[in-house]
Amino acid sequence: MSRSLGDIVDALGGILHGSRDISVTRPAPLATAGPTELAFIAQARYANQLQTTQAGVLIVPVEMQEPASRRGACIVTDNPYFYFARLTQWWRREHEVRVAPVIDPLAFVHPSAQVDEQVDIGPFAVIAAGVRIGRGARIGAHAVIAAGASIGVDSYLYPRVSVGERCVVGARCVLHPGVVIGADGFGFAQHQGQWIKIEQLGSVRIGDDVEIGANTCIDRGALDDTVIEDGVKLDNLIQIGHNVRIGEHTAMAGNAGVAGSATIGAHCTVGGGAIVLGHLSLADGVHVSAASVVSRSLNKPGHYTGMFPIDDNATWEKNAASLKQLNRLRERLKAVEQALAQALKDTPTP
Amino acid sequence: MSRSLGDIVDALGGILHGSRDISVTRPAPLATAGPTELAFIAQARYANQLQTTQAGVLIVPVEMQEPASRRGACIVTDNPYFYFARLTQWWRREHEVRVAPVIDPLAFVHPSAQVDEQVDIGPFAVIAAGVRIGRGARIGAHAVIAAGASIGVDSYLYPRVSVGERCVVGARCVLHPGVVIGADGFGFAQHQGQWIKIEQLGSVRIGDDVEIGANTCIDRGALDDTVIEDGVKLDNLIQIGHNVRIGEHTAMAGNAGVAGSATIGAHCTVGGGAIVLGHLSLADGVHVSAASVVSRSLNKPGHYTGMFPIDDNATWEKNAASLKQLNRLRERLKAVEQALAQALKDTPTP
Amino acid sequence: MSRSLGDIVDALGGILHGSRDISVTRPAPLATAGPTELAFIAQARYANQLQTTQAGVLIVPVEMQEPASRRGACIVTDNPYFYFARLTQWWRREHEVRVAPVIDPLAFVHPSAQVDEQVDIGPFAVIAAGVRIGRGARIGAHAVIAAGASIGVDSYLYPRVSVGERCVVGARCVLHPGVVIGADGFGFAQHQGQWIKIEQLGSVRIGDDVEIGANTCIDRGALDDTVIEDGVKLDNLIQIGHNVRIGEHTAMAGNAGVAGSATIGAHCTVGGGAIVLGHLSLADGVHVSAASVVSRSLNKPGHYTGMFPIDDNATWEKNAASLKQLNRLRERLKAVEQALAQALKDTPTP
Repeated sequence: MSRSLGDIVDALGGILHGSRDISVTRPAPLATAGPTELAFIAQARYANQLQTTQAGVLIVPVEMQEPASRRGACIVTDNPYFYFARLTQWWRREHEVRVAPVIDPLAFVHPSAQVDEQVDIGPFAVIAAGVRIGRGARIGAHAVIAAGASIGVDSYLYPRVSVGERCVVGARCVLHPGVVIGADGFGFAQHQGQWIKIEQLGSVRIGDDVEIGANTCIDRGALDDTVIEDGVKLDNLIQIGHNVRIGEHTAMAGNAGVAGSATIGAHCTVGGGAIVLGHLSLADGVHVSAASVVSRSLNKPGHYTGMFPIDDNATWEKNAASLKQLNRLRERLKAVEQALAQALKDTPTP
Repeated sequence: MSRSLGDIVDALGGILHGSRDISVTRPAPLATAGPTELAFIAQARYANQLQTTQAGVLIVPVEMQEPASRRGACIVTDNPYFYFARLTQWWRREHEVRVAPVIDPLAFVHPSAQVDEQVDIGPFAVIAAGVRIGRGARIGAHAVIAAGASIGVDSYLYPRVSVGERCVVGARCVLHPGVVIGADGFGFAQHQGQWIKIEQLGSVRIGDDVEIGANTCIDRGALDDTVIEDGVKLDNLIQIGHNVRIGEHTAMAGNAGVAGSATIGAHCTVGGGAIVLGHLSLADGVHVSAASVVSRSLNKPGHYTGMFPIDDNATWEKNAASLKQLNRLRERLKAVEQALAQALKDTPTP
Repeated sequence: MSRSLGDIVDALGGILHGSRDISVTRPAPLATAGPTELAFIAQARYANQLQTTQAGVLIVPVEMQEPASRRGACIVTDNPYFYFARLTQWWRREHEVRVAPVIDPLAFVHPSAQVDEQVDIGPFAVIAAGVRIGRGARIGAHAVIAAGASIGVDSYLYPRVSVGERCVVGARCVLHPGVVIGADGFGFAQHQGQWIKIEQLGSVRIGDDVEIGANTCIDRGALDDTVIEDGVKLDNLIQIGHNVRIGEHTAMAGNAGVAGSATIGAHCTVGGGAIVLGHLSLADGVHVSAASVVSRSLNKPGHYTGMFPIDDNATWEKNAASLKQLNRLRERLKAVEQALAQALKDTPTP
């Protein structure tokens, strides 16, 4: 499974110090990499790790060229982390077992579906009436693509993905197992103590280069569509409500939730377990910490947090009890301030 | 895809102002509706939107009859939001492609299963021994109904729903993709540092007119059953633990969780990401805000919240640091109050 | 479905008071058990329930032997809860409909897969190239086991479980419906405002006797593996990020999330909805309350909490508003303390 440094720089560029014939067995984390493995140091401020790592070969930034090449074989590049990301992509492609794309005879493909060339469809997948699947797409086992949906070129749906009626998935997307695109949004009108369903007539439109983690759900819109723009990355178990819009290249971590009709800008990040309430809007470049609740619109880029600090349970109990009286404490403080000011005024200066 | 106003009021009632022959292309949101579209104004206090909307036709409350009909075509009704909900249902039915229900030849139906007339079963669905499926039910592709379970009349299971052994789903329920009914509750006894499984011998009983969102899980009871009463609406990615009971017409938003043996009353709402701890009980008419943790029983109806307010990160950091000393601050305040009171007592009045 | 007390103590031990011929219809909760049912009292401090329960037969600790046997039939044992757990297991086995394991003809099993004897594989399951499945394992309908993965002896995969390429599941594990093992970890490098995928080259290794709840996700590692040690119990809808390690016999409740590269010790518990941030480490024996956010490493065993106390909404609003000024309040308190100290110093003692 090993590859030579010559092959690597031929494919990915960078300045090689050391022999092209050195071979490495895998990319590895800096802390645990061994003499046959390849690791990276992202920035010059981690230069002290040059002395401690056992990695056979290092990817380093330009500033570290001299000490790194004195130490041993290395590849020098502007942005080692970016180089490393491309290396993982190349490494995976190199080691992939390639099989010619095939529509598995155990899949069900409706006669009216339009399936381009070079599409791979796994066993027991269901491709309904009027579906369109672009060239090079791979549809995993047990995926269900409902009537009128479309999947863009080179998109990869892992097994057990559902795409609802009329939903659109762009090009080069990756959808992990259990993803549900286009379930009904949560819309009901209250009438005489009961919930009356508002049928969800919109759909979901997902741009290009979007990645969606396992068991994440993106609901269809009530009237208009739910929209996920190009380059968005969603982790696992995220809930995206109806008519949400998420801007380009925004990333959200696991267990997060976005309620209906919220609009999230481009280049945002939302931490794990964070909740964005409905109908709010977040500007481009907003970063929400993990487990924070966005309860008002955030109109300026920046970093926002709302998270109860963790403590040992006994200390937390005391502070939480005081918190339940915080407004009263504030009033008491104000009273003390006033009484003290009055007393100081009343007291004749000595 | 358009429909005439005459058809709409014939089906749904309401007083029509304008020609029965006017046709609309779709129901649309008030803010974006165009001249061929139909929108609603829920309450008279939004009457100023009469002037700004481009909607071709409006659904309005009785109080707005005069100005709305002066503006153009409208349908007048007691409760426009309820009318709109019914309109979406009618619209969907009108535009549905109807196909005769069929048991797909690629489905597996055990010979001992009792499947009523007019049932539709999708490809690769698995209907196990002794299952009963009521008239008019639709079972999506890849659904798995385990031995002895039953599905009520006219219920709609989307693809990839699991219903565990002996679980009961009522009539007219909607279960979205990835729903898991009747996985084992999380029950273990600790013994010598290890967890010993308590087999979950109960099941799940779901009433009529219940809707359950994508990838939501409802665990089976340990000994008795987990119970979801009629008319309950659950959003996506919700966890309902074993032996929970949820009362009629309660609604819960996405990512919420209810731990084992909690009892939630009727007509409650639970916000997104909220957590209800185990063995607690919530009265009828309790409303829990998003991301709040219910850590004690709530015996009175009302609105409850516990959520750290979001702020810019720098401000949050300072407040969170102070919060970790809050109980100490309270003691310091008390000391100041006492010292001040003593000093004022000691000071001769001038 | 009833069983005699003689059969029960023959199988599980304990000292029987009363006739071996008494039969019970099921294990039941103490509060609702009837005269033909069997319930347990865990500890002597619940002895007052001896008088109120209607249970036909009780499982009691040694200290309660005398009063319990005076009341009626009972089984005496050191640890009634543990006995009860074993009883549920025995009860389930006794009532299970046993069918000879079979590879369903509707399953797809790749010719290169190694499937041991006594393995049961359900309809529409997909067993890919090079998979190994140990003796006695049961693979539910629609499970997808990707290339090169392995499933240990006697493990039970419910329907609709996904196990990704090269992932390893140990012996006697239970994986509930919708579990996703080995989806890609959430790893991207930022480059010119876009996210560049870091291919996830590691896998997931799950030890023996692990139980994983419905729709829970465990991501594969970026370079090294994600590791779940023996005896870990995970509830439903949990997210485990890439390169996480969870120590032996740790249990986590529903909706929890663990971000990438966090290390959780052995014998820990993590409450429902809690979040552990990335790269942190938790010592053995750490217990995290529900809905708490672990934002720093916890190096000592103990009980930790960080949760905003719930209150009626009006009170919460006032306290939350004050919390946003807490640091300022602290400064004001300090100023009052200083002014008061100065005033007291300045005031001539009377």
